[in-house]
Amino acid sequence: MEQKKYDVIVVGGGHAGCEASLAAARMGARTLMLNLYLDNTALMPCNPSIGGPAKGHLVREGNALGGEQARAADYSTMLVRWLNTSKGPAVQALRAQCDLRDYHDHFIWTIETTPNLEVHQDIVTDLWIENGSIRGVKTKYGFTYEAGAVILTTGTYLRGQVHIGLLNYSSGPMGQVPSTELSRSLLESGIEMGRMRTDTTPRLHIDTIDTSSLIEQKSAEEPLCFDLWGEKKTYTGYSCYLTRTNSYLHNIIRENLERSPLWTGRMSGLGPRYCPSIEDKIIRFPDKDSHLIFLEPVSRKNKEVYVQNFSTSLPYDIQVEIVHALPGCEKAQITRAGYAIEYDYVIPTQLAPSLETKNIRGLFCAGQINGTSGYEEAAAQGLIAGMNAVLYTRKEAPVVLKRSDAYIGVLIDDLVTKGTNEPYRMLTSRCEYRLLLRFDNADRRLAPIGRRMGLIDDVKWQILREKWAAVDHEKERLSNLRINPSEEVNDWLVRAGSSPLEESVRAIDLLCRPEVTYGAMRPFLPSIERPLTDEEAQSLAIEVKYAGYIERQQRQVIRLSKGEKVYIPEDFSYDEVPGLLSESRQKLEKIRPQNLAQASRISGVTPADIQLLSVYLETRRRRKERGITPSS
Amino acid sequence: MEQKKYDVIVVGGGHAGCEASLAAARMGARTLMLNLYLDNTALMPCNPSIGGPAKGHLVREGNALGGEQARAADYSTMLVRWLNTSKGPAVQALRAQCDLRDYHDHFIWTIETTPNLEVHQDIVTDLWIENGSIRGVKTKYGFTYEAGAVILTTGTYLRGQVHIGLLNYSSGPMGQVPSTELSRSLLESGIEMGRMRTDTTPRLHIDTIDTSSLIEQKSAEEPLCFDLWGEKKTYTGYSCYLTRTNSYLHNIIRENLERSPLWTGRMSGLGPRYCPSIEDKIIRFPDKDSHLIFLEPVSRKNKEVYVQNFSTSLPYDIQVEIVHALPGCEKAQITRAGYAIEYDYVIPTQLAPSLETKNIRGLFCAGQINGTSGYEEAAAQGLIAGMNAVLYTRKEAPVVLKRSDAYIGVLIDDLVTKGTNEPYRMLTSRCEYRLLLRFDNADRRLAPIGRRMGLIDDVKWQILREKWAAVDHEKERLSNLRINPSEEVNDWLVRAGSSPLEESVRAIDLLCRPEVTYGAMRPFLPSIERPLTDEEAQSLAIEVKYAGYIERQQRQVIRLSKGEKVYIPEDFSYDEVPGLLSESRQKLEKIRPQNLAQASRISGVTPADIQLLSVYLETRRRRKERGITPSS
Repeated sequence: MEQKKYDVIVVGGGHAGCEASLAAARMGARTLMLNLYLDNTALMPCNPSIGGPAKGHLVREGNALGGEQARAADYSTMLVRWLNTSKGPAVQALRAQCDLRDYHDHFIWTIETTPNLEVHQDIVTDLWIENGSIRGVKTKYGFTYEAGAVILTTGTYLRGQVHIGLLNYSSGPMGQVPSTELSRSLLESGIEMGRMRTDTTPRLHIDTIDTSSLIEQKSAEEPLCFDLWGEKKTYTGYSCYLTRTNSYLHNIIRENLERSPLWTGRMSGLGPRYCPSIEDKIIRFPDKDSHLIFLEPVSRKNKEVYVQNFSTSLPYDIQVEIVHALPGCEKAQITRAGYAIEYDYVIPTQLAPSLETKNIRGLFCAGQINGTSGYEEAAAQGLIAGMNAVLYTRKEAPVVLKRSDAYIGVLIDDLVTKGTNEPYRMLTSRCEYRLLLRFDNADRRLAPIGRRMGLIDDVKWQILREKWAAVDHEKERLSNLRINPSEEVNDWLVRAGSSPLEESVRAIDLLCRPEVTYGAMRPFLPSIERPLTDEEAQSLAIEVKYAGYIERQQRQVIRLSKGEKVYIPEDFSYDEVPGLLSESRQKLEKIRPQNLAQASRISGVTPADIQLLSVYLETRRRRKERGITPSS
Repeated sequence: MEQKKYDVIVVGGGHAGCEASLAAARMGARTLMLNLYLDNTALMPCNPSIGGPAKGHLVREGNALGGEQARAADYSTMLVRWLNTSKGPAVQALRAQCDLRDYHDHFIWTIETTPNLEVHQDIVTDLWIENGSIRGVKTKYGFTYEAGAVILTTGTYLRGQVHIGLLNYSSGPMGQVPSTELSRSLLESGIEMGRMRTDTTPRLHIDTIDTSSLIEQKSAEEPLCFDLWGEKKTYTGYSCYLTRTNSYLHNIIRENLERSPLWTGRMSGLGPRYCPSIEDKIIRFPDKDSHLIFLEPVSRKNKEVYVQNFSTSLPYDIQVEIVHALPGCEKAQITRAGYAIEYDYVIPTQLAPSLETKNIRGLFCAGQINGTSGYEEAAAQGLIAGMNAVLYTRKEAPVVLKRSDAYIGVLIDDLVTKGTNEPYRMLTSRCEYRLLLRFDNADRRLAPIGRRMGLIDDVKWQILREKWAAVDHEKERLSNLRINPSEEVNDWLVRAGSSPLEESVRAIDLLCRPEVTYGAMRPFLPSIERPLTDEEAQSLAIEVKYAGYIERQQRQVIRLSKGEKVYIPEDFSYDEVPGLLSESRQKLEKIRPQNLAQASRISGVTPADIQLLSVYLETRRRRKERGITPSS
């Protein structure tokens, strides 16, 4: 058999696989993507929407690091809106409804035209491992491909099992073939695997829905986009529609629970807590007599509609009944049935924060294989795994984002430190530094890393530098500039519901008032050569208004970062530490945290034990400094 | 289980299934298409080209009958050319290279927007038959759908088995899931099944091919289209490229035949004689040291290229070697491997000329399930089956095209009368009345049937009537108009290589001369209110120039049509006929021809036996007229 050699091989062509492949190839690594069906590259088997709370942050962060998902979303947007606009600035989020065909087109074209990147349709059956390091992969077609690093992004394909009522069969998502052999190879390599589940909704034919009776949600009137360097646009012609479940519908479900694979316990994998199936909602919230449902278009090129919040694995005949029980959908035709899919995942606590497996050097995992759900979570991991696979082949230190750096940092830290036994979804509530990790400052936080990786070109970098300089200059100017009380100024302030000035104040202090916007203040400021864009003005205003909170979070980061700097050696034996609870000791041995801060986040490890560990590590360090080995 | 009731159910969503569904729905029948993966509706798993010799005729005939394929081809054309332009007018053919994504888009959109037509993703597992008649189908999702008629268009999915070298596994085309259960149901219903095979080529990445060294084939400079009512267009930006195999490449194949599933006899199904795999060519034509290969683009939206004439089921590593041995492809990257696929088909002699199965009333079969190959052959059958399924539910007589009516008639008559044990491909040589069955007169031959079926609307019908009237008027005018010898006329004739006039001649007689074109003659004719289009002029010229041959074929048709009118009763017992050879008797019993002409085309039935049968039927008829029953 011929062997072809690559720097990086990516197994899978979904959201994680695409980002991983593109990042690796763009960093100059000779990259191969192995994908079991090229026409389903970047498939959106669930709702073709990108963004939303926390997920939108992931997209923008990936964008700032040099990822592709934001551009794919912009390329394929059918409608787009800001969500959470009534809430604080940290959790406002962009969400686009995408044309799933265009989204695929963008990715396959980008992949096929990116230098250093090859793509083949084939199914990986075996890992090739030697002396604890990855050497390559073997495929169904009988090929062995050699590689410096391998990234697994197998999504829901590993031993996929579809459930529709009490019917179940081996299958990938959307009726595709599953990957049946790679799990065995992973198990044989000593990787611990778990089983998870996710669900999707029936698809309906839009022309068979009476949308006239439903609340319509159009695209935002203001131009929007995800890409930092993209062109903001408005969209027309496509809308989402809102409907609600009712007690009649809930009763149909209740009466048929004995035919539900969920209720009857036929599915071993845990499903997504934050995106439960409709029958799961009925079971878990018996008092609630109605749930909000969104009908969302999936493509300009077909007539199908996704029924958001209505995923189900009930039998098909019951799906027909409950769809027809939805207001507006009384005569709706189902084009595709909803289903649940169970699949194998890699227990993510076996991964280092670089997303490399701890046991097999050079083997990385990203996306749903790590127990997450969501295209955004997948893409973010793919991007990091792609970078780190290349850095690994270059024998350079990996990119590890801290919890205070990015949502991506929170995501990966949660996975590798705490693990997950249900599909992990990014939520703003998982993030302790929300005011630091905003949508609007993702570029400041992360673009320098993307630039260092070679994923942001000179033109884009220059645009960011000018943007940052403009905001900084304006902030400085506002600190030095004073606004005097005048009739116009006080008129405006009173109208805005703020108190009038009695003496001159610094402009920056005026901007601190909740009622004062930068835009409204601008007429009272001398004009500047490069006015801020709306987004820049928004970013500036947030920084000024929330300065106190932001500084407090920053102090917290510094305080906690001390623990990040207390490294725990890779081969550290927790048996050395006297007095640890055995549960703590077991979990620490299993997760093998890289530092004291990560150790403190492991669930089940008590603060008292962290204290013991901290004292021990400090003593050990001092002894070492004095040249005393621990055993002496 | 809920039961939904339809007039017509179509099982499958390929080229046959799409045409069948659209025809049925457009005729007003409540129609359901059941398709195992909606995103692969009208999939082109082989070369995305439509047309070519004989196949182009099928497309235009389908178009004249009110089918959709011509429009889909026009909608998705990347480049288009006339083939066989150096040959006679009867075999000239249009061939378009299509964007397979656009082709799909056209069909799914058309299907989803056609009234009376529903489409569901599901897999049919069982036929529901009662008292020898179809009642409906049962599906994997546990649904039973009731129907007046069912059309099976399962393509290569029935118990599909893919071969790549000595590797083989259960699979549909392009790595899709196969249909594993319906075959069993067919067998249990008494349908006799066979096994066939087809092959496809590796796909290459266009940017890894050195096209600069290859012969380029661009789109025609003249505007072209398939659709009778379409807008002719020119196309730029995409080309095909020609390369050739060589003895080095042939040697690689020869040295690896022991790893070929074809050579080692691992495949039971017979493959396509007229589209053999490259290894088949090397085996069958050992003296030929080079074969012509076309590199053809498949979509504007990706970079893949189809390698026409290079289908193969050799192991993947050998595919890599032989691709690299092709001039221009030395560094080509293979995106997808070639493969052979074996599948179950229905022995087509079990079908009536309406495409209804003889044993199960109301069950129709169309496309590759009947043993054909090619999108055009499939679509043509689908269209006829769609019409006849509706006519069956209305208890009306089916549309049966005679061999002298259409290529479609030849195709179906060959299938149901002679059968086929290898994938049947339409060829001009299969057709005995080529001068009657021209591309340019498909509308005259068949549009009246499409109109009667309700598949051609008033606007389109009016356009055709005006076109036919214009040609007829012009033909009549040329018969009455005389052209006198003049300096200009004789100058032109001599320049055209024809002899000058000495006395006036009828314009129509001048047009009979091979060197004289209608266009060149036009300046010497009085102008008319509605000048003929180029296509109309071409049609007129053919009719005039070949009038002698055309008339001879028409006389032949009339002579042979006598046999078409000698009907054989459905329950006729061939045991009655004394003296028949037992082979003839068996074949006649099996095929159960509808008339004497069809009987005469059954292979293995001798002319002497046809004579015996003819005499017997005539005697029987006369006795009946005289009120004498055969037994008396």
